[in-house]
Amino acid sequence: MVTFLFIVSAAVVLAQTPRQVSLIITNGIVVTVDDGNRIINSGAVAIDGTDIVAVDTVENVRRQFRGRQTIDAAGQVVMPGLVNTHTHAPMVLYRGLADDLALDQWLTKYIFPAEAKTVSPEFVRAGTRLAALEMIESGTTTYADMYYFEDEIARETKAAGLRGVLGQTVIQFPVADAKTPAEGLARAERFVQAFKNDPLITPAVAPHAIYTNDSATLKAAREMSVRLGVPTLIHVAETQSEAMTAKERGSGTVVSYLDSIGFLGPGVLAAHAVWVNDSDMALLKSRGVGVSHNPVSNMKLASGIAPVRAYLAADVAIGLGTDGAASNNDLDMFEAMRAASFLQKVATSDPTAVSASAAVRMATIGGARALGMDKQIGSLAPGKRADVIIVSMNAARQTPMYDPLSHLVYVTNGDDVQTTIVNGKVLMRDRRVLTLDRAAALRDAKKWAVSVSAAVGR
Amino acid sequence: MVTFLFIVSAAVVLAQTPRQVSLIITNGIVVTVDDGNRIINSGAVAIDGTDIVAVDTVENVRRQFRGRQTIDAAGQVVMPGLVNTHTHAPMVLYRGLADDLALDQWLTKYIFPAEAKTVSPEFVRAGTRLAALEMIESGTTTYADMYYFEDEIARETKAAGLRGVLGQTVIQFPVADAKTPAEGLARAERFVQAFKNDPLITPAVAPHAIYTNDSATLKAAREMSVRLGVPTLIHVAETQSEAMTAKERGSGTVVSYLDSIGFLGPGVLAAHAVWVNDSDMALLKSRGVGVSHNPVSNMKLASGIAPVRAYLAADVAIGLGTDGAASNNDLDMFEAMRAASFLQKVATSDPTAVSASAAVRMATIGGARALGMDKQIGSLAPGKRADVIIVSMNAARQTPMYDPLSHLVYVTNGDDVQTTIVNGKVLMRDRRVLTLDRAAALRDAKKWAVSVSAAVGR
Repeated sequence: MVTFLFIVSAAVVLAQTPRQVSLIITNGIVVTVDDGNRIINSGAVAIDGTDIVAVDTVENVRRQFRGRQTIDAAGQVVMPGLVNTHTHAPMVLYRGLADDLALDQWLTKYIFPAEAKTVSPEFVRAGTRLAALEMIESGTTTYADMYYFEDEIARETKAAGLRGVLGQTVIQFPVADAKTPAEGLARAERFVQAFKNDPLITPAVAPHAIYTNDSATLKAAREMSVRLGVPTLIHVAETQSEAMTAKERGSGTVVSYLDSIGFLGPGVLAAHAVWVNDSDMALLKSRGVGVSHNPVSNMKLASGIAPVRAYLAADVAIGLGTDGAASNNDLDMFEAMRAASFLQKVATSDPTAVSASAAVRMATIGGARALGMDKQIGSLAPGKRADVIIVSMNAARQTPMYDPLSHLVYVTNGDDVQTTIVNGKVLMRDRRVLTLDRAAALRDAKKWAVSVSAAVGR
Repeated sequence: MVTFLFIVSAAVVLAQTPRQVSLIITNGIVVTVDDGNRIINSGAVAIDGTDIVAVDTVENVRRQFRGRQTIDAAGQVVMPGLVNTHTHAPMVLYRGLADDLALDQWLTKYIFPAEAKTVSPEFVRAGTRLAALEMIESGTTTYADMYYFEDEIARETKAAGLRGVLGQTVIQFPVADAKTPAEGLARAERFVQAFKNDPLITPAVAPHAIYTNDSATLKAAREMSVRLGVPTLIHVAETQSEAMTAKERGSGTVVSYLDSIGFLGPGVLAAHAVWVNDSDMALLKSRGVGVSHNPVSNMKLASGIAPVRAYLAADVAIGLGTDGAASNNDLDMFEAMRAASFLQKVATSDPTAVSASAAVRMATIGGARALGMDKQIGSLAPGKRADVIIVSMNAARQTPMYDPLSHLVYVTNGDDVQTTIVNGKVLMRDRRVLTLDRAAALRDAKKWAVSVSAAVGR
């Protein structure tokens, strides 16, 4: 009898005093990207601290929770933040410096000389601030990066409030932050130790590619990743010519070469993976390697068309990336979704290939899975980190709306993102970025552009 | 001596009293798209009434002209309005209704039933208002259209202030505005007579395609166009299967069939023209046919990849189009430029294919030429109609800027357009559309969407 009374009174108390949480986003069209692809038309997301605590109808969330802060998302889409699985953040300072060139011209006449003359800790910090601003403004909440002075990138990423899987580059030739691969490896280890337990930063080791590293360096980089328990980021089979290096080292393809030196395994993220055959794909799948598909970069640089429909059919962990802004030329993941869908449709002569739903999944949970973070991020579910964006659907080009997934992929741009939340913290509210000095970031970028122009004589 | 004094005093008067004109756009980065591709970094455009009277440096324009109205375009690009060479404006009301479907499913289960149940003069007017809003907001100043009740479309286009090449559809089967092709032809003739001398509207005859018209109807439509001196708009070789019809009628390709019935000639605009061989291309060139390339629609519907690089090399008059919003799903010509460039690069394995400059030319002067209007519009030059847009370059994703042409194609969206001017009239100023009731257009579209959903049961 006592027990019964206790239960009743507890229920009454629950009904009367909803739990207080830090933030409730309410009245939105909630695109959960959960296993059932659930869309809640009049939905709410309750966030407490760094975590999502509820994703449900407005009514159910209101009954259980009260927010210290509330954001009304009426008429807008509430969805997981976008996961950009491959970029080189500071290269935003080179965007549009040189386009429409043959690959070797582009690299040897512009990008490499510019990097040789301008990359420094200060340059990398200014570039990361600009990239972070652009990512926050376009709904990216997690990004994977490969560049130099990655510790500087990590500090700016943390300051901006973004989540990052940040890979310190290891490369055979002398670069701005290391004269030898050994120096690069030592720098990578220091970087990993410094950021190992950070709530926002996952440090990683990033051997650039097989054509820019010998097998000893590749092995050493991978062994360090495994020893330290952090991801390995690498460019894989981006261009057809990369297979030359693999052949010189006795393997038929880039992927089979990497497997032959014991490189492939869980925690490896293969950026691009355009030129793969069926065996390569089976290897990537069986070794638990994640793939980053970068459709805009692959088209703009004419690298080739990755077999994305086949990757999806084989259930390879595949996400989307923008690549660096020197080869895109922006960091808009909505454009990446659209391009991924369009390119596969036309390449396979099949208009059903990479549906809007598939593209949204790749840009969120797919990317999280490719980075080994799908337990923490990539969908809206209680217990996951609160990485959430709110996307406007009120433009003429978004009217009328029959299907929010179609609109997200086929008519929405990064600029439609109104609010960006990472780890429960609001980084942008109603288009106002709260964690960065926008004017200063743009001003600094313009200053650096003067040096970049001078470096390449244009 | 008298003559000499007269000249001197006239020069003094000229220097002291600049000519008053209606509008000067000043301090912009003026992308003229003229024959020399001239870009004036601190430039101005003087407009008087419907015409451009000067395109020069700020200093030179200031010396010669004084504007009753002045628009400061500091830090922004001033360029010719975009020419959308192929769309079906009212189909914005079907955008996102059905995606990711096989072509026959998409047409027979969604688009045709929706059209059968909803197309009416009222529907077409509401759709055109929404499309006009979207086009003005994204910098399109001229558009070519093929749909039903084209007289209603013309009235709404004029009211919105846009320039249109508007084709009344002629089709073999019964449609909303004509039970027979004869009725369609009669309607087309009345439409042409009603709008023949309009300053904004160029009426046209639009036989839908060869697979939806018999040869007698095709010939009658073309003969009417020639007799009335107006353009002929037609879908040509959009999909591979269209060649079947040509073969049944004794020709190897769609283009050779059209030529065999005397259809091809100046004033014909061939939309899509994806599946063409070298002889077809030579025919299109020698007959003076214009081509409308629609890269986004071609990718989304998996129609195929038009040989745009070859068209450009052959100097065929080629412009860009969005196609209707049911197959795009928006009317953003910046996206069309980007897609045209990206798709050719990856399809030809050549990153130099369709440069940013080539894409900008296709979207402006190329489209004007394809429509036979390059004497009037498509570039900024004295004597041409004042169809001008002002495009913001201040977003994070547009920072820094090394090359305005690169930015226009690779990082700019329709929403970056701040001001849209057609025929000397300001239709949008600082993102505020002046010729349409924005809220009413969106509200009406949402109302029609309810009927559309009901018509197809989703």
